[in-house]
Amino acid sequence: MRIAVVGAGALGLYYGALLQKGGNEVVFLLRRDYDAITASGLTVRSINGDFHLDRVDGARTSSEIGVVDLVLVGLKTIANDHYQELIAPLVGEGTFILTLQNGLGNEEKLAELFGAERIIGGVAFLCSNRREPGVVEHLGAGRIEIGAFSGASERFIALLAETFTTAGVECRQVSDLKSARWQKLVWNIPFNTLSALMDVPVDRLLANGQTRKLLREIMIEVIDAANAQGLSKDIDHGYADTMIAFTEGMGPYLPSMLIDRREGRQLELEAIMGRPIAMGEAKGISLTRTSTVHALLSLVCDTLS
Amino acid sequence: MRIAVVGAGALGLYYGALLQKGGNEVVFLLRRDYDAITASGLTVRSINGDFHLDRVDGARTSSEIGVVDLVLVGLKTIANDHYQELIAPLVGEGTFILTLQNGLGNEEKLAELFGAERIIGGVAFLCSNRREPGVVEHLGAGRIEIGAFSGASERFIALLAETFTTAGVECRQVSDLKSARWQKLVWNIPFNTLSALMDVPVDRLLANGQTRKLLREIMIEVIDAANAQGLSKDIDHGYADTMIAFTEGMGPYLPSMLIDRREGRQLELEAIMGRPIAMGEAKGISLTRTSTVHALLSLVCDTLS
Repeated sequence: MRIAVVGAGALGLYYGALLQKGGNEVVFLLRRDYDAITASGLTVRSINGDFHLDRVDGARTSSEIGVVDLVLVGLKTIANDHYQELIAPLVGEGTFILTLQNGLGNEEKLAELFGAERIIGGVAFLCSNRREPGVVEHLGAGRIEIGAFSGASERFIALLAETFTTAGVECRQVSDLKSARWQKLVWNIPFNTLSALMDVPVDRLLANGQTRKLLREIMIEVIDAANAQGLSKDIDHGYADTMIAFTEGMGPYLPSMLIDRREGRQLELEAIMGRPIAMGEAKGISLTRTSTVHALLSLVCDTLS
Repeated sequence: MRIAVVGAGALGLYYGALLQKGGNEVVFLLRRDYDAITASGLTVRSINGDFHLDRVDGARTSSEIGVVDLVLVGLKTIANDHYQELIAPLVGEGTFILTLQNGLGNEEKLAELFGAERIIGGVAFLCSNRREPGVVEHLGAGRIEIGAFSGASERFIALLAETFTTAGVECRQVSDLKSARWQKLVWNIPFNTLSALMDVPVDRLLANGQTRKLLREIMIEVIDAANAQGLSKDIDHGYADTMIAFTEGMGPYLPSMLIDRREGRQLELEAIMGRPIAMGEAKGISLTRTSTVHALLSLVCDTLS
């Protein structure tokens, strides 16, 4: 499969590297890492074993890449305004677009621009951080769930799931993409945003009794908002405790939004918080604590570029 | 009147200086400022005009001061565990104790130790900051409201109000101390705590549309909790707008809790947030946003001494 990775951050570099290692023809759209990667390849430092790809195909513009079978979108959602210019040159008759981005609203926007029938949504449960140019670090997890947004070929999605699996990525094809997205938000909203707001790794949030309680309360708000959307199966409140236990195992992990803040980049507030809050409230669920954190983070955003 | 000032921070130094200038015999219990003040006096830089007191009486321990007519308590509430050792040597038969401290619970604790009949509560609406040793800066407001906690002589309180007024402090004797305390909390809870949490002056909170809205929502929570306590007169929701307009005039003011945080001192969380939240919830009022901010600030406290 010929694959273009658009948004080669921690997520795009990691999955792209595995897909190339798994035998696919991968081209990365690069900015910061262009020189390092095209000259010396790409290094993955992984809990599953480090590896290095000697020859990696990189491009500075999408038109250099041309039409591919799959566009893997790993952009920060704050860059979604650039979908058209970044993705259009890659799309031909039979091209599919898989977004593994955070939060809500990405598939909708891609569908508007490129047609719903080629859009595949995906949710990645991945702990990874970008390091020096040419190096990505995989700290934990990595499983993805993918599903049609609206009408995309189930046959292609099954093939794609197999492609990921062959490449060593645990990948499950799901019939209810919405459930998968909201399940990830149950983790992402409390941990990602409180870490960013307080400038602390996740273990510090768990170690303090009051913020630990707040994390759980926010998860319950998100679960209630999720269940109001009409999922194929309700998310149990106990899922909050499962996520807390899961996060205990992550140690002093720095979620992506905290890294964005520390590196002075704009935060993915709209996709991760704004839309979920609005969708909950549209169904009569008040996400009061979540909205409080959202307002406070908007003040942090005032100081970012 | 012979007055001992216990807790000679920005508030204690300011009112103590005015009371001495107004003809009272004032002794300050001092730590940081002892050398500067006993050697060179006390300087007040005030929007109402600067002045300097050449000879100021300071002591390092309360037993050096002995019994006084009035103990003016300006301690940080986090030091309330030291009430007994700091105040007991100052109290004789006819001594009254006025607490101008922040938040809730101070009068109760003083009453337990020294008897309810000598406790006067007071609420200060004062913008002042301590500067280098021997200097206090008065940036705005300064009005105080005082009232009996439970059974203190109304005659003495009237005399005390007159003493303050003579000294140039706008002072009103109130019959409902509880109302006065809660009214101050309507300002103190949102502005003091959000400034401290976000490490920004109050004008930054007002300039961002989302935090401005959050400030008002928190004020409404506090007003509802206040009104559930059975005040002599309910606080109108419109008071929130009045306080926002009032704060607009304060410019880039740094509230006391933010200064405490910046100087690495423990925050007055229990008096300003913990007790009001508990008292609201005891009456069935959920202060959800306020509790969210409280939990986040408890994490800030983990890093303070």
